Amino acid sequence: MQQFPEFNPQARILLGPGPSNVSPRVLKAMASPMLGHLDPDFIALMEEIKKLLRTVFQTGNEITFPVSGTGSAGMESALANLIEEGDEAVVGVNGVFGARAADCAERMGAKVHRVEAPWGRIVDPQEIEAALKACKRPRLVAVVHAETSTGVLQPVEEISQLAHQYGALMVLDAVTSLGCIPVHIDRWQIDACYSCTQKGISAPPGLAPLTLSERAMAAIGERKTKCRSWYLDVAMIAQYWGTERIYHHTAPISMNYALYEALRIVVEEGLEARWARHLQNAAALQAGLSAMGLKFVAQEGHRLPQLSAIEAPAGIDEAAIRAALLRSYNMEIGAGLGPFKGKVWRIGLMGESSRRANVVLVLNALEQLLTDAGVEIARGRALAAADAVYAKSA
Amino acid sequence: MQQFPEFNPQARILLGPGPSNVSPRVLKAMASPMLGHLDPDFIALMEEIKKLLRTVFQTGNEITFPVSGTGSAGMESALANLIEEGDEAVVGVNGVFGARAADCAERMGAKVHRVEAPWGRIVDPQEIEAALKACKRPRLVAVVHAETSTGVLQPVEEISQLAHQYGALMVLDAVTSLGCIPVHIDRWQIDACYSCTQKGISAPPGLAPLTLSERAMAAIGERKTKCRSWYLDVAMIAQYWGTERIYHHTAPISMNYALYEALRIVVEEGLEARWARHLQNAAALQAGLSAMGLKFVAQEGHRLPQLSAIEAPAGIDEAAIRAALLRSYNMEIGAGLGPFKGKVWRIGLMGESSRRANVVLVLNALEQLLTDAGVEIARGRALAAADAVYAKSA
Repeated sequence: MQQFPEFNPQARILLGPGPSNVSPRVLKAMASPMLGHLDPDFIALMEEIKKLLRTVFQTGNEITFPVSGTGSAGMESALANLIEEGDEAVVGVNGVFGARAADCAERMGAKVHRVEAPWGRIVDPQEIEAALKACKRPRLVAVVHAETSTGVLQPVEEISQLAHQYGALMVLDAVTSLGCIPVHIDRWQIDACYSCTQKGISAPPGLAPLTLSERAMAAIGERKTKCRSWYLDVAMIAQYWGTERIYHHTAPISMNYALYEALRIVVEEGLEARWARHLQNAAALQAGLSAMGLKFVAQEGHRLPQLSAIEAPAGIDEAAIRAALLRSYNMEIGAGLGPFKGKVWRIGLMGESSRRANVVLVLNALEQLLTDAGVEIARGRALAAADAVYAKSA
Repeated sequence: MQQFPEFNPQARILLGPGPSNVSPRVLKAMASPMLGHLDPDFIALMEEIKKLLRTVFQTGNEITFPVSGTGSAGMESALANLIEEGDEAVVGVNGVFGARAADCAERMGAKVHRVEAPWGRIVDPQEIEAALKACKRPRLVAVVHAETSTGVLQPVEEISQLAHQYGALMVLDAVTSLGCIPVHIDRWQIDACYSCTQKGISAPPGLAPLTLSERAMAAIGERKTKCRSWYLDVAMIAQYWGTERIYHHTAPISMNYALYEALRIVVEEGLEARWARHLQNAAALQAGLSAMGLKFVAQEGHRLPQLSAIEAPAGIDEAAIRAALLRSYNMEIGAGLGPFKGKVWRIGLMGESSRRANVVLVLNALEQLLTDAGVEIARGRALAAADAVYAKSA
């Protein structure tokens, strides 16, 4: 068909805030033949996926499965199932994804107490506590572990302790952290945690791993009203992902093939090794970016290894630089969101994309493009700084 | 890894109520390299998908795109966006999927008027009108075009006229009809229609094509409250699938590759030819099933070509027959849902699965297995009846 030709996308180097690059093993898995959603072979696969997700989430939670939607569907699933009309929710907001969770919680009927922090700074546990104190009977606290809009790493344990101290459930957004940095659901006593497939796990976007503690499931069991979402109602979905195998909706079969293969790769590498790889490549990248004189959005001491948000140099057309990266280097980095639009770049080194080769390529490309755009940069210093990081840990 | 071996599913013959078989072209498309959701090449693909979906839906609706979830997410999207707290909704219920729409509409805050019909019969337009008359100010009427639990084909045009006559929007569930039988969104004046990818379109499950009329979009624009779903909020999603390209959530990239290739195949075959193919293979299958003495659930004159629900012969262990089909013939057919559990089989001939070879294989297998189970069947009569249908149309 001339009008609708075959689509053959280029193999990009994906260094944005997700999706990250996908292993050929995972791509190949998706080309496997279709199975029915109640086929015994697919049901056996579901059991394996649940086991692997528990390993990655570091949890024994029975209810651990991939929601049939992208990471945001995971967020909506956690909030829709835990919130009933009039419930009070304390939500940390220091970027796009905290604001999104607050918005979603309100749509589910919650009275939301927003605990704000400037973009680039962490949410203060003391302010979370103050908000909890101001609640009559707080239902949940929700924070974003890795704020994708700013590159901030939020400390979670203290907030989780506070949540429980005040009788609330603890909800964690691990969309940009799972598979990149430690996420300890049981050790941190997280009651609901959602992630995505396309960042640290490096499968394509389309599923949202979700885990719910026994406490969370008990709260869901005691609801007086139905979940506002039919599609995401865990009380029903758990009957399909559990032993009853009662049909709820047709699971995205091929995406589950992809997730299984991606999780196999994660477990083969080992979580500790994977976290260390992310740390090392991030240290090299961030040393290089600093050597170029670029400034980080996130406060020092709370920077994500897997996602660096940096300020575009003043007077530069940042979109033109991203377009040139795509055109001349076949490389994607992310733009700024909201108030950071036109001002910030976001460079991701997540999952498959977290490689030394990518650190070298993006530093070299940025150095060249910024020099061409008139920014004064001592050529070669960024790559030397990155190499020094690798040499130190060799 | 010994514990988690590579998953290599068998190539099943999928003759259940979905998923149907997927073309190797579509499977191959999913193995294409990942692109970012704001990559210009992916954005170009989105535009082509919208055009192809408009062709398949037979509509000029600008807002026509795949929701990032399975068919049920399409249902929830239509209802969540069109319903505000207290709205009155008239919902036809003659099977699982009508009941599901009614449940979902209530969760979105609607006062639902259920117009019931026995399973296997169509919803009566006169009863829809009576329910509309009983409303103060009906917001919408929703019916299921192809009731997947019973195999009933619901006439839609008269109900759509009634909906508009009483000032309501018309919502159509085309999950099991799109790509199999005619669906005329503009001619029938449907305001919201949702479908899935894994049945008539024959891509894997995971996306839900949705189309909304200008009237529907105007109603959404006049909402006084936010949509109860953040994930499915069309007011935001239309900014990503429209020209603004504002990030909402990360689109399921590989699933969109699959949908594009599957839609190319649909358009290459041509809608008229595809509908005719479904009719012909269904006529052959249904002639064969009748020759075997099997009884249809759906009333005569309102049977779907793409899905035949038949009563399992009395005294037969229907699950054992399905297990034998899977084990000995590598073939899946569907079980009965709800009150039909243990009593009904559902045989689908949808999209790629609607082939003469599959008609022959399933009739032969059923004949043999039922004979083995002690049902008296004149061997060979079913296949002769099917062949006669093909001979007549040759």
